[in-house]
Amino acid sequence: MTAESILNVESTGVWKGGVKTEISVRSFAPFMVDEPASLGGTDEGPNPVELVLSGLSSCTSVMISLIAKEQGFAYEAAEFLNSGQIDLQGMSGVAGVSPHFQSVQFDVVVTTGESDERLQQLKAEVEKRCPVMNLFLDAKVPVTTNWVRK
Amino acid sequence: MTAESILNVESTGVWKGGVKTEISVRSFAPFMVDEPASLGGTDEGPNPVELVLSGLSSCTSVMISLIAKEQGFAYEAAEFLNSGQIDLQGMSGVAGVSPHFQSVQFDVVVTTGESDERLQQLKAEVEKRCPVMNLFLDAKVPVTTNWVRK
Repeated sequence: MTAESILNVESTGVWKGGVKTEISVRSFAPFMVDEPASLGGTDEGPNPVELVLSGLSSCTSVMISLIAKEQGFAYEAAEFLNSGQIDLQGMSGVAGVSPHFQSVQFDVVVTTGESDERLQQLKAEVEKRCPVMNLFLDAKVPVTTNWVRK
Repeated sequence: MTAESILNVESTGVWKGGVKTEISVRSFAPFMVDEPASLGGTDEGPNPVELVLSGLSSCTSVMISLIAKEQGFAYEAAEFLNSGQIDLQGMSGVAGVSPHFQSVQFDVVVTTGESDERLQQLKAEVEKRCPVMNLFLDAKVPVTTNWVRK
């Protein structure tokens, strides 16, 4: 691990009452994170676990872009859809129930003239090197991925 | 695990060229996730790992709100600051280097008239039950947390 290869990333947040938090990243406009009414919030923005799923899709997208270049893989479009299941008993403090994702499904649709074999090669390398995917995998979340060509 | 305790959460994304992805969550306005120029992007929004750190702060904020009620802990304000270190060698495919967080520092500043002992009791319960914190912990990310009263 050399110092020059280390990327430092940061975020800050301010509680805005209820279960609402205003988050700031670098000089971007602050954004609100909240919960829907069903979870005790006022629904003024995505909730924290939706943000983490958003991170999974966008991180995969970054890695596709980088690794497609390495592999000479041409594609015209990519779409992402993921869903995750949280057992609220974990958040409520029930012993033995993980508070985070019980499972995640992740569909990636790539518009490409490349073969399915080449797509699966791209997938394998992306999943091996994607930061957010590996956070899920190292946490032993069962992630079911399905990459298809369009 | 009973079906009625399962919360399903989703996000979708569309690649917008380069390393840029437009993310949508429920009916909220879509938002852009990008990388800074130093990482090959056009810097039109936070990057994926910054989103995940944002999820950590906002999730902790939600859990403080819930658990403070349970514990009768009164507070007036809460602020969050976290930083994480990513070794870019992992993303580049260097064997044996994790692509996700090597370490995370997480400061929580709570404005309260409660004792430090009560604050530390709140912290312990929040960290035990917070979904996003436990994703980091289960992935064996060393998270250094520091909760202080203001």
